[in-house]
Amino acid sequence: MKVLVTGVDGYSGWPLALHLLARGHEVVGVDNFVTRRRVREVGSWSATPIPSFPRRLAAVKELTGRTLGFYRGDLADFEFVRHVLETERPDAVVHLAEQRSAPYSMIDVHHAVATQVENLTGTLHLLYALRAVCPDAHLVKMGTMGEYGTPNVDIPEGFFEVDYRGRRDTLPFPRRAGSWYHWSKVFDSGDVMFATSLWNLRATDVMQGVLYGIRTPEITDRRLLTRFDFDETWGTALNRFIAQAVVGLPITPYGRGDQRRGFIALEDSMQSLRLALEHPAGPGEYRVFNQFDAAYSVNELAELVRSIAGEFGLAPTIEHPADPRVEAEQHYYQPLHEHLAALGYRRTRELGDVVREMFRELLRYRGRIAAKRHVLAATVQWRSDDSRGALAARAVEPGARPADPDRPADSTGTPA
Amino acid sequence: MKVLVTGVDGYSGWPLALHLLARGHEVVGVDNFVTRRRVREVGSWSATPIPSFPRRLAAVKELTGRTLGFYRGDLADFEFVRHVLETERPDAVVHLAEQRSAPYSMIDVHHAVATQVENLTGTLHLLYALRAVCPDAHLVKMGTMGEYGTPNVDIPEGFFEVDYRGRRDTLPFPRRAGSWYHWSKVFDSGDVMFATSLWNLRATDVMQGVLYGIRTPEITDRRLLTRFDFDETWGTALNRFIAQAVVGLPITPYGRGDQRRGFIALEDSMQSLRLALEHPAGPGEYRVFNQFDAAYSVNELAELVRSIAGEFGLAPTIEHPADPRVEAEQHYYQPLHEHLAALGYRRTRELGDVVREMFRELLRYRGRIAAKRHVLAATVQWRSDDSRGALAARAVEPGARPADPDRPADSTGTPA
Repeated sequence: MKVLVTGVDGYSGWPLALHLLARGHEVVGVDNFVTRRRVREVGSWSATPIPSFPRRLAAVKELTGRTLGFYRGDLADFEFVRHVLETERPDAVVHLAEQRSAPYSMIDVHHAVATQVENLTGTLHLLYALRAVCPDAHLVKMGTMGEYGTPNVDIPEGFFEVDYRGRRDTLPFPRRAGSWYHWSKVFDSGDVMFATSLWNLRATDVMQGVLYGIRTPEITDRRLLTRFDFDETWGTALNRFIAQAVVGLPITPYGRGDQRRGFIALEDSMQSLRLALEHPAGPGEYRVFNQFDAAYSVNELAELVRSIAGEFGLAPTIEHPADPRVEAEQHYYQPLHEHLAALGYRRTRELGDVVREMFRELLRYRGRIAAKRHVLAATVQWRSDDSRGALAARAVEPGARPADPDRPADSTGTPA
Repeated sequence: MKVLVTGVDGYSGWPLALHLLARGHEVVGVDNFVTRRRVREVGSWSATPIPSFPRRLAAVKELTGRTLGFYRGDLADFEFVRHVLETERPDAVVHLAEQRSAPYSMIDVHHAVATQVENLTGTLHLLYALRAVCPDAHLVKMGTMGEYGTPNVDIPEGFFEVDYRGRRDTLPFPRRAGSWYHWSKVFDSGDVMFATSLWNLRATDVMQGVLYGIRTPEITDRRLLTRFDFDETWGTALNRFIAQAVVGLPITPYGRGDQRRGFIALEDSMQSLRLALEHPAGPGEYRVFNQFDAAYSVNELAELVRSIAGEFGLAPTIEHPADPRVEAEQHYYQPLHEHLAALGYRRTRELGDVVREMFRELLRYRGRIAAKRHVLAATVQWRSDDSRGALAARAVEPGARPADPDRPADSTGTPA
């Protein structure tokens, strides 16, 4: 089938394109390179050196013999979105082109608004363009487990049966997100659910857990590496812990560290997305997959990273700075995840093995992480109304590159 | 207390300002006059002739001796919002400044995006400005009963106790809206709920039923009239039915007409909002009021209008065109509404009496309705992806004024 991947230059968009090509599908990507610019905005870069996009395309061609189609553009431009769909007429669209950082959305009012406006606008444009051009195409839209928050009951996959005051209905499970970013994903889910019923579209809404990992089987060459963010704004807690260990800093789980979240390996996320694509939703169907395979607490991750660091001759300590976020530090967490298993999903990677692989890879790029070590500390405070001061101070520290919005960052391919 | 009313030029904002002034409160308004422009965009105008805003302010001063403060500006401009709050330091803000038409949001992709972006942006700007300037001020934010949709169980006021798989929690009641506009209200509710917990703000979220009525006790002079929209895009079904009867057209409930909704008289809505203001939410409290006092089906409204029309010597027929919306035409509907009653709310107006009052008033402006009779038919089709063609055809029919975005519409005060 032909799959359009929006956000193909991103952490999961890139390996997804490689995976789908390897499975024999035709793949066309879209990106505006905004993540490269925004990571630079907070004074950081990808730990893995990422080639410019034209070099990425050339490497795919040279190493696999396959052609990855590509359109540079922004989903904020409806005519662009319609043009791409009209030209390509894909069988499916995987929509990953969203601002994806919770801390980024919490920097100040402008980042909050930009996050919600961009994410909503892109999704609405895609929905209307699908309706107009290819209403039978299957939309796989990336949400997050964070939409649900941490209720004191099990978390179903999107919908649950409600018994209330003597009557019964099946309703969307209540969402209670913890950042402007996570709320933007809740809003997207509402719009996709509504559009599906309105226009008989097909949609799979993926409530994805936190991704971890740096390699997939299709990344057979350094030129095919995907990006790896380790800074406090764009990296996950696990990425940050490993980066801290690699450059000799203490590992810093926020607060008590008992916050639990669902996780899934990058490679297994690719498996899940492919399964969703190969078993599409029916016309008018809006289905929700909780896409994770195990839940861990932040402390469990920190302990695991410390233990595996020892295998590499590193001896990081663990410190607990105050939690800059607004979240329950101790809570019940039991999300269900049965829909993907029913399609044949099976976990192929274990967390410990992937953490070892991440250490091996990141030790090669220790210099790139060390050059940006100042980005590993929390500067975005959830309860402040403006974290720009701290970020601006960071962005001009030695080692930060000047911003150049017209040139993709990290395009040299050489470690600093 | 000092109350800031955003959207003070609107159908409910204007009588709210008059009501609060009459109760001895200090009132400052904000508006950008966009509703005047947008009603003109669909080829319509207010049945009641509305003076320009400066004339409104002068009439208030002359007739009541009170001064209504006013800032012309747009909540899309964060510095404007912060400037108003810094200058006025209100004790409470009633936030009514949103795109409020479901059909308008369904015209095409651009109206869908504009509705969601404007409503979200204005609310986020207000939340951040409150946080920065007067975090102890009480935000009363206008939502809609339409956020809940029509579940097959009772609808609580915002939250309900969930028993699921052997555990229990109190969670937001699931929302399932029926237009891009209604979803924008769901999104606003999420952002207000989150901001309240994040920054310890005080908020009352009003899930308002459909408003009806044309007069409040403080509208003592024709110069103080509020706007009255009767076109298919900006008017409610009840407004449309009465306008149809007044100009000799059939009354047109869509579809089967068994759709039930909650309703509240304009005057009783003012009472409710005042009660919320005079009994504010506590710091960090996010409370939800279902603000309606009776539910009626569309058919009940149509029959009532036909019956009362007879008292005025009119004999309208009732026709049932196909429903252009996407909604259940037969459904359970039992929302709860106890929070306002606990604060002392008591219904003061009966639907039939208000409908008589609306007929008396609208018969005076029969000429203004007749001049725009073409706007009484449904042109925005929920399932179409573009209703602009039909609207454009309507907007250039004889009787429509040329658009002039710099001058408020309907400013002459003389019926056509």
